[in-house]
Amino acid sequence: MVSKALGKYVQSLHQKKYRHRHGAFLVEGGKSVLELLSSDLETEHLLATAEFASQNLAQLAGRVPRTVATALELTQLGTLATNTTALAVARLPAEIPLPPTLPETALLLALDEVRDPGNLGTLLRLADWYGLPGVVLSPGCADPYAPKTVAATMGAFARIRVWERDLAAWLPALPPGVGIFGADLRGDNVHRLTLRPAGVLVMGSESHGLTPAVEAALTRRLHIPRGPGGGAESLNVAISAAVLLDNFYRNQ
Amino acid sequence: MVSKALGKYVQSLHQKKYRHRHGAFLVEGGKSVLELLSSDLETEHLLATAEFASQNLAQLAGRVPRTVATALELTQLGTLATNTTALAVARLPAEIPLPPTLPETALLLALDEVRDPGNLGTLLRLADWYGLPGVVLSPGCADPYAPKTVAATMGAFARIRVWERDLAAWLPALPPGVGIFGADLRGDNVHRLTLRPAGVLVMGSESHGLTPAVEAALTRRLHIPRGPGGGAESLNVAISAAVLLDNFYRNQ
Repeated sequence: MVSKALGKYVQSLHQKKYRHRHGAFLVEGGKSVLELLSSDLETEHLLATAEFASQNLAQLAGRVPRTVATALELTQLGTLATNTTALAVARLPAEIPLPPTLPETALLLALDEVRDPGNLGTLLRLADWYGLPGVVLSPGCADPYAPKTVAATMGAFARIRVWERDLAAWLPALPPGVGIFGADLRGDNVHRLTLRPAGVLVMGSESHGLTPAVEAALTRRLHIPRGPGGGAESLNVAISAAVLLDNFYRNQ
Repeated sequence: MVSKALGKYVQSLHQKKYRHRHGAFLVEGGKSVLELLSSDLETEHLLATAEFASQNLAQLAGRVPRTVATALELTQLGTLATNTTALAVARLPAEIPLPPTLPETALLLALDEVRDPGNLGTLLRLADWYGLPGVVLSPGCADPYAPKTVAATMGAFARIRVWERDLAAWLPALPPGVGIFGADLRGDNVHRLTLRPAGVLVMGSESHGLTPAVEAALTRRLHIPRGPGGGAESLNVAISAAVLLDNFYRNQ
């Protein structure tokens, strides 16, 4: 049985304003909740059905406060009509420092106004797959802690680091010599390059591409060749990022 | 002003049952409608706002029957709350033959139970980008003509060919020597192979992977290496397909 106060608190976290005010966000679904519990993030509340709790005794042991909820309560309190297992409230992680010299030794992904939470979540999952040290988000990106983003990361939310930066100011302030890569139909064919995973790969919004000030900061433009006879005008932003990242990591 | 009968007909096409009964499907949004009009597909009805019609006079010329609709009518008749420009009814294309020898000379994408229309649309767009001759869908896949699928193709629906086949029967009946490729965490590292775009690349559903009979038909298993320190367990099905297709087409 979920108390009225807890239910109201959980529902408030659907909105960004209250996530910031309370320093907390929602994690929905059994798989994501188990990822949360095995991560370094702090769990504030755990709401689970009796069935889920009994099936995952070991992972849930010692986690407090824990509340038994019905499947109906979970769907009423959360944003997912399909979540009938568990829901957690996690603390927003404290930002760790982002050393300006990091892109000299590792590849960072930077996202310029990626507003779709599904695309953002897929991009965070992808960055986690390739082991990037983190993702830099412009202030116009979707909230990385919105329920739809968290769901689309398929658990990567619990591992991948994010920083919010004004890219138009941050990119030009990086140490000289750091490669700033972006996708451009008139750029160099990635199949003919030997790329190393260092620098910053900047991806723009699907509809508008890179904002002009960010575009101006690029030091190298990359192009994914369309297949012979290919018709599509463009690729989805997460698809493009995946192909580019694979081209950065294939020469390790 | 949209007649009551036309409105009822358009709304019936939200459902697969009526798309099949009427041999027609919906195309929503100005960009998709313009892709439809410049394609080989037959347009049965066109509903557009006066503003959209006047902005696209040349592309709309001679297209009948054309009905002027308000933005409100478009959102009421369609599935997209954001479509305030145009909506069309297109005829379902007649299936063209699928020669069993095609995969000897070209690469086909085959999808095994990909049930999410957004993922399916993204995969069709990707196949269109790489110029694949078409995509083979198992009967359990999402409907390629569902409104969500059509929207996610971003126009590729008007070009890419699809065939529905029982993959467990179709794959083993392909000519001997045709490569049947699938993703497998224990497969060969794609970064160490020189792949040519011929054969069939089979992708399974995100949650369940390939069905056992389809898995048994593979002749080669491919693996996308995770980056050093990478944490994610898996990649989205469209993301995996993109990386694999890029590895097939990079040696052209």
